[in-house]
Amino acid sequence: MSLTVVGSVAFDALETPFGKRDKLLGGAGTHFALSSSFFTDVRVIGVVGNDFTENEWAVFKRHNINTDDVEVVQSGKTFFWRGRYDYDLNTAHTLETQLNVFETFEPKPSEESKNSRLLFLANILPMLQKQVREQSNAEFVAMDTMNFWIDSMKDAVIETIKVVDCVIINDAEARQLADEPNIHKAAKKIMEIGDLRALVIKRGEYGAALFTKENYFAIPAFPLESVFDPTGAGDTFAGGFMGYLASQVEITEDALRRAMVYGTVMASFNVEEFGTERVDRLTQDEINERFRDFKRITHFEEIPFEHASSAS
Amino acid sequence: MSLTVVGSVAFDALETPFGKRDKLLGGAGTHFALSSSFFTDVRVIGVVGNDFTENEWAVFKRHNINTDDVEVVQSGKTFFWRGRYDYDLNTAHTLETQLNVFETFEPKPSEESKNSRLLFLANILPMLQKQVREQSNAEFVAMDTMNFWIDSMKDAVIETIKVVDCVIINDAEARQLADEPNIHKAAKKIMEIGDLRALVIKRGEYGAALFTKENYFAIPAFPLESVFDPTGAGDTFAGGFMGYLASQVEITEDALRRAMVYGTVMASFNVEEFGTERVDRLTQDEINERFRDFKRITHFEEIPFEHASSAS
Repeated sequence: MSLTVVGSVAFDALETPFGKRDKLLGGAGTHFALSSSFFTDVRVIGVVGNDFTENEWAVFKRHNINTDDVEVVQSGKTFFWRGRYDYDLNTAHTLETQLNVFETFEPKPSEESKNSRLLFLANILPMLQKQVREQSNAEFVAMDTMNFWIDSMKDAVIETIKVVDCVIINDAEARQLADEPNIHKAAKKIMEIGDLRALVIKRGEYGAALFTKENYFAIPAFPLESVFDPTGAGDTFAGGFMGYLASQVEITEDALRRAMVYGTVMASFNVEEFGTERVDRLTQDEINERFRDFKRITHFEEIPFEHASSAS
Repeated sequence: MSLTVVGSVAFDALETPFGKRDKLLGGAGTHFALSSSFFTDVRVIGVVGNDFTENEWAVFKRHNINTDDVEVVQSGKTFFWRGRYDYDLNTAHTLETQLNVFETFEPKPSEESKNSRLLFLANILPMLQKQVREQSNAEFVAMDTMNFWIDSMKDAVIETIKVVDCVIINDAEARQLADEPNIHKAAKKIMEIGDLRALVIKRGEYGAALFTKENYFAIPAFPLESVFDPTGAGDTFAGGFMGYLASQVEITEDALRRAMVYGTVMASFNVEEFGTERVDRLTQDEINERFRDFKRITHFEEIPFEHASSAS
């Protein structure tokens, strides 16, 4: 298999200015797997409870996502999160979190998962991320994390960063992790924690930046007039990014750059509807069309200025 | 002449985390003119007082900026602003404003200024902007404005927008002007106020976006590890943008896009040192080198994804 993700499979309840849903399929592992499934074969390592129904499994099946490593705990319930977005949709307000079966989650990667070429450690306890990484033979491993872990166990986050190839986080997390307000200085500090090949900093509606040992690359976000539900946008980005890389024979600078664009494209679809609804019925043609649109809105010709060309 | 700007010529006093200056040459008209002077011939319409010395005039002379329309009021002092930037450098805190001769400023464009091919209305009273625009024969007129005018005389701002071709503002101003948090919806509303050919929305460290009737274009900021003094960055951007356009025979979509990049490049130099210091000693080669660097950090190859290319 080419790509494995370890992360949450969950139910979300949401209130946004555009509506309300009591039970949506969600979780970082879900959003990531769904997004990456358009580019490669994906396996999920996770856990669900007895409330996980055929409707939810069907989403994974439709996209050929392998769920052999998703444990079903019959005595418990699936991780549940209830949140609210206000008018500006930038900040999620957590109203309720029930960890349920996720509280005692112990990832149990199968041989197939261990031998996946790429591995993504979605946002879970940093010690668990490290454990899964150390059992894996992947040639390229990326991780996410969050403000909560950086606050409460920064050392563990750092120990995990030391054993991965790529970190994918948002700009507030990068600033917090490096304790440095300038994003370029922060990036340099994070790159130096371990031996990172790449650091991706997501900036929401402002785009994303890629730091590698030799290069810097930055792109704007895909322009959207309405963001319906931002939940899972970051994981959908990571799924497009890692999924595209998994489809490539070599992880070159060029491939990383295109992966950034595919991540951006996938995230832009994700926020258009509630939960996984938009990505679930996405087509390859729609993805490629938005990739072409993205090229169009960012392209300019490189013609150096010459004073002689003045029309004055 | 190809480009005329009407705007403030001022003295600034600054406190930043990196140092303190009691008297720097500043003002929107100054920063704009200096930046655009690398691309075209520029004239400034403004006013100064009896405290304006040979040292200040010398900056304009060095860059062949025509100051015939800068009135000298012998009985008064030059516009003075004192501000402070804190650690994050994103917000200017105004400590003191002395309008001085600027309070009764009445722009008096000469025939040469009226016949300039391009005109920039820097951030002054919207009624004055409109007056100068109506006296001008320019084929392309752009304007700036600020939150203060949008708050206190939105109607006048709107009347001015109706008679220009291009608006160059920051994202908070765009949201405020359109009363709409989504920047793409806000842009659409602003474009529809008048008959705008272009709307430029500046997003500081996140880059800038260009809206035209048919297209959208967005770029990140130039990556800088240290921002020393952000004063005048917006006007320096506008100067690079309008200066480059003035150098082009036709204002096409392609020219507008490159103008966005030149604006970004010029602003990136401006913030590297206090006041006008960095731009004052800039060379054409440095500008072109940074333009090439910018192309390098934003370029990606457009290769559509094909499932067949999967390496799994």
